[in-house]
Formats: sequence, structure tokens, C-alpha cells
Amino acid sequence: MEKVVVIGAGSWGTALGMILAKKGYDVTMWEYSKEIAEKLSLDRENKRLLPGVKFPENLKVTSELDGLLKNVKYVIFSVPSQVLRGVMTKISSQIDEEMILINTAKGIEVLSGETLSHVMKDEIKGKYHKNIVILSGPTHAEEVAQELPTTIVAAGELENAKKVQELFNTENFRVYVSEDIAGVELGGAVKNCLAIGAGIADGLGYGDNAKAALITRGIAEMIRFGKVMGADERTFSGLTGIGDLVVTCASQHSRNRYVGERLGKGENIDDILKSMVMVAEGVPTVKAVYAKKLELGISMPIVEAIYAIIYEGANTKEKVKELMTRELKEEFY
Amino acid sequence: MEKVVVIGAGSWGTALGMILAKKGYDVTMWEYSKEIAEKLSLDRENKRLLPGVKFPENLKVTSELDGLLKNVKYVIFSVPSQVLRGVMTKISSQIDEEMILINTAKGIEVLSGETLSHVMKDEIKGKYHKNIVILSGPTHAEEVAQELPTTIVAAGELENAKKVQELFNTENFRVYVSEDIAGVELGGAVKNCLAIGAGIADGLGYGDNAKAALITRGIAEMIRFGKVMGADERTFSGLTGIGDLVVTCASQHSRNRYVGERLGKGENIDDILKSMVMVAEGVPTVKAVYAKKLELGISMPIVEAIYAIIYEGANTKEKVKELMTRELKEEFY
Repeated sequence: MEKVVVIGAGSWGTALGMILAKKGYDVTMWEYSKEIAEKLSLDRENKRLLPGVKFPENLKVTSELDGLLKNVKYVIFSVPSQVLRGVMTKISSQIDEEMILINTAKGIEVLSGETLSHVMKDEIKGKYHKNIVILSGPTHAEEVAQELPTTIVAAGELENAKKVQELFNTENFRVYVSEDIAGVELGGAVKNCLAIGAGIADGLGYGDNAKAALITRGIAEMIRFGKVMGADERTFSGLTGIGDLVVTCASQHSRNRYVGERLGKGENIDDILKSMVMVAEGVPTVKAVYAKKLELGISMPIVEAIYAIIYEGANTKEKVKELMTRELKEEFY
Repeated sequence: MEKVVVIGAGSWGTALGMILAKKGYDVTMWEYSKEIAEKLSLDRENKRLLPGVKFPENLKVTSELDGLLKNVKYVIFSVPSQVLRGVMTKISSQIDEEMILINTAKGIEVLSGETLSHVMKDEIKGKYHKNIVILSGPTHAEEVAQELPTTIVAAGELENAKKVQELFNTENFRVYVSEDIAGVELGGAVKNCLAIGAGIADGLGYGDNAKAALITRGIAEMIRFGKVMGADERTFSGLTGIGDLVVTCASQHSRNRYVGERLGKGENIDDILKSMVMVAEGVPTVKAVYAKKLELGISMPIVEAIYAIIYEGANTKEKVKELMTRELKEEFY
């Protein structure tokens, strides 16, 4: 069977690696920390991030970069958005024309303001650009590891997106194909910001009615942003837009929603982030989206409020009240 | 202050009546059962459906129809979809040109296959048709009664929809205006069907990933159905479409989701309905939608599966598996 490397042994990388190992692929997960890599190899389980699910035998873990991509057909990137560029620079010399490069993180790089496929393109030769595929959708790692039914989208040039579809597809993990890379990436990035907003509503003790309003208005912001950024509007009404937003905003698993909930209860962002093991992608991404929105003049009042709460120390309750009590007008303006 | 009558003293009618009574309107709730009406008047609280929330003094309850609508400016209908026609026939002689007629139920009449504004039109004079306004959105009565932030849409001829907006609007209950009666009605009706599907997924032990897929595919079915039925597609991306669907599918309050959950656990529909105090609108409405979909040739695989489970005794697990494992294709077809 073909060789697969997963860069990043977090919960999502592990869940994806396990799907492929169970399908018989020869899978190696690369973990940055030597100590953690050794512990994972020894435990045959990610006790911290995905407890209770044993690694199949053909899933290996390493922290060694030398020769990592030799004879590898599929490279899956599952590292936080803000460190993707650094990882790419470390392994770009090992990439060749035959490799399919699959990104699974959802975010926008703050320094460049770029989506992650652009970050990847920056760091590899032009002739490999067509090999980039984005894998994104409403997918909690915990549920995928338990083989609960899940759907997801592979976006890229049609031929390569179809390869990724075949690679991952199982009865309980259904992969759809899209050619709208921008739409798929932007949906995932913006929903992580909006999930913080949903969490804030939870933290303030608001109910489902308020959250429904937030999600509905949030989708409108996502679409306005995506259209200006070159995405196909239809993509946002699919799994990687609405689908992902809905699951994240309602879920107890979501780290972004969780950050928002603690903000809503009045905690300080620094204290919240210090106490968390995993990365909440929405926190840096809201900064990147806010900068783009200003630059391009896009109306995004929810993102603006979340940015003000996180980065300008705005009062949470007041900001949300401001959002709720904007002058009455027709719903679509 | 103007006089308001609420037809139907269920949880939603009561929550709406209480908003208006608190705003100072002279509100009378009409309840079909004399016994219940007397109990409500005595308790000054709906202990069964909305416990813990006391009626304001200017909220009265009656079971008397004679002279009920005398000098009344706003009549709010809050009865189950399948009994609306019967109620309309009883009071149609009392309706005059000055009254705004507000329907708040969400469904389609099974016998006629008609939306509820059409049912109302059938039973009143043509010159009153313009006075019909639909009030719909993501709104659990329990949260409205607790004055948690809520948004909702009033759909009708612009002038009358705006009157209803002014009537209900408060700081925590924000009313938007729409002229797309069909879109607002169909969104509410179809979401009640889809909520049964979300409940089935819950009952089968599926997770958020599966539910996100169901909601996303469900919105596509709602839009396909709505467009053929004359609605404005944009309405479905708003509060009364996506917004209402999201809140219902995720909510522990929703009766339709609850019916689905018990179906998913293998219970029989008759046993479920017999054990419930309140009406689950999705159960008859799925029958009406299914008939329309067949008649008009609209692809609605989720509605089809729910219909088969409820009305043809299809095996729940098999039907859901069938839905999940349809041939792989691009996401938008």
C-alpha cells in the first residue's frame, strides 16, 4: 500500500491517520516533540488528546524529519495555521511532483493575511501548486475516531481532489469533492471566529434563540467576506460553510466555542489561552479576518465585536448588547 | 392601549401574549377548553406548559367566543396547523377590515396541502387577505418567556408587517420585516420535518458530525422545495430558514426533535404521540410535504426517509444508512 505521512500528531491528525491505517495504508505521524513522539509510540494511544482509541499496528510515530517524505504519496498537514509556514520550510526540499499535499488546518495566517493554500504555495515550487488539496468540513476528531458517521469535503484541482476522496473514503467517512479552494478555506477560517461569538453568548447565559440569530447573521458575514475574497458563494451553503459553523457553534467539543464561553463569563483572554492544551484557531484568525475586513471595507459587525472583546479589552456584555440592539431594519440589507 | 386577542393558550401563544401584556396592551387569550381556561385564570400561570412565569395583570384568559374580537386590533393565531381552519371558521364572522391577523403556527395543512396563510385566506373575505401577517423564526417559548434575547420575522404586506414589528418589538425581542410570506412559511414548515430527522440521528447515537451533514443537506432540500413553491431563495438563508432549522435541530426544547429521538431509539410513532402533551407539527407536515414533493417532482431524500419511517414503518437504521451511503458525487448536484 502507498505511504502516507501526517505532519502533526494532534487529535485531528491522529484521527485522520487512524482512518488510513485501518484502510491498510502505511502511515507515519510526525510529531514535533521527540518526547511526545516516544510516548505516543510507547502508549499506542494519544492519552492526552484522543484517549481510549488504540493506534492500529501500521500507524507509526516519529519526530525525525530526515528522509520523512521518501517514497511518500500523500502528505497530510495537521498543524496550527500560524505554524504551517514554518513546518513547510522545514520539509519543502523533500517534496516532489508525485506528492499530494493535503492541508487540514482551518485558519488565516496573521502575518501575511493569507489563506493556508497560499502559505503552502509560497513555500513550494510553482509546479507543485496543483498538488495542494484542502480537507475541511464539520468533523470533530473524537467522533471520527469512534467511527461515527461523518461527511467532509476535499477541495483542489478536480483530479487531485478525487484522489483524496478515494484515499479517505469509508462507509462512515464520506468525502465530497469541490474545486472551490477559496470557499472551502474561508468557510473553515471564519466559522472558527464565529464559534467564539457563539461561546460568548453561552457564557452570558443566552439561549438557543440568540445563538440562532448569531449563526444566521454570521453566515451572512461569512458570505460577504468570502465573495470579496474570490470564493464561490454556493460553497458557504454547504458542509464546509453552514455545516461546519452549525456543528462548531453547538458543540461542547469546540475549543473556539469554549474560549468564547469563558470570555462571556468575564475571564481574560490571556488566562484562558494559558490554561488550554490545544490551540483555538479562531483567536489568531479573528485578527487576520478583522484586518482584511478593514482593508477591503466589508461589513462584519460580529467579527468586529469579537475582535474588540479579545484584542481591545472591550466589555463583553456591552458589545453583545450593541450587536443585538442595532437599529431595526429589514432582515436582508 | 389597543386590544389584542391570542387564539390558543399553548406555550407559544402565552409567551407572545405576555410580551404584549408587559408592553401595556389589553390582551385576552382564548383557550378552547373551558376547564383549562378557568385553571389558567385562577393560577395566573401556565403550570403545565410554561411553569414558573406569572401572567401580567392585563392578560386575561377566556374560552368564550361570542364577541371575542369586538374592538380588537390584533388577532394572533397560535393553534396547531391542522386545526387552524376549524378555528378560522368559528371566528371568521367577527373579523373586520381593521384587524391584523397574525399566524404563528408552522406547518402545512395535510388535507389541502396548503400553507397556513392560504388556509386563512380560504376562510376570510378577499378584502381582508392583505391583513394576514406571518410571525416566524428561531424562538423557543421558554426563552422568550424568560426575556432572553430573541429575533423573529414578521412577513406580510410591508405596511402591515411593519405594524406587527412595532407591536411586538422590545429590547430583547427583535422583529424584522419581510415581504416573502411563502418563504417564511415554508422555512418554518420544512424545518419541523427536518428536526425529526435530527432527532432520529440523536436517537441512533450519532454525533455532531452526522447532524451537521443532515442540516446542510436539509437546507438544500428546503430551498429546492421552496423555490418550486414560489418562495424567494434568499429567505431560507435567514432567520426563518437556516436560523430556525439550526436552533430546532440542536435543541432539547424541540418537540419535533424529541419525536425523532424516540423514533431513533426504536419506538413506534403511535406510542410516542400518545405520550406527548404538546403537538409535534413536523409529524403531519412531513406527510403534506411528501405529497407535494411527489406531485411536483422535487428531490428530497431526507424528507422521503422520514416519511417512510413514520408512515410506512420503514426500519430507521436501514433508512438512515441508505441516506448516508448514497453514491459519492460532488457536493452540489
